[in-house]
Amino acid sequence: MYVILVYDCGEKRVVKMLKLCRQYLNWIQNSVFEGEISEVKLKELIAKAKKIMNEQEDSVILFKSRDIKWLEKEVIGPEKNNLDNFL
Amino acid sequence: MYVILVYDCGEKRVVKMLKLCRQYLNWIQNSVFEGEISEVKLKELIAKAKKIMNEQEDSVILFKSRDIKWLEKEVIGPEKNNLDNFL
Repeated sequence: MYVILVYDCGEKRVVKMLKLCRQYLNWIQNSVFEGEISEVKLKELIAKAKKIMNEQEDSVILFKSRDIKWLEKEVIGPEKNNLDNFL
Repeated sequence: MYVILVYDCGEKRVVKMLKLCRQYLNWIQNSVFEGEISEVKLKELIAKAKKIMNEQEDSVILFKSRDIKWLEKEVIGPEKNNLDNFL
């Protein structure tokens, strides 16, 4: 399935969360990721994210689509993921 | 149609962008919005966003779905838009 993931974390946990999400998805902007992922891998990602998160403060929002064909993407301005390698 | 909008703006433009997006969509986290919007209203929103944006630096990413039924949303942690009124 295709997912869009956005997280909102306390500063101390941002780097860990970023590294985790990049193992499973493509970074597209700030704390936003997208990508094709299996149910199993997504569960694994969520379980690992929960270990990093402070569940009182932090949140992760997932939008799941069975197929990318149901989602149309439009980017206004530069595509920041070109900078991915520099992070 | 249903859209998810994420923006990444220079600090000076963040407040303007936030205010603009809230006129058209629901704020869900940081710089992330979602909501049902017509083609016409979305064009209006994009045109206004372009006026605020520095198109070299800032970006707006839109994910559009013809119907919310194609998207499943999952929130891990608190739903931050409860705090919307305090912003």
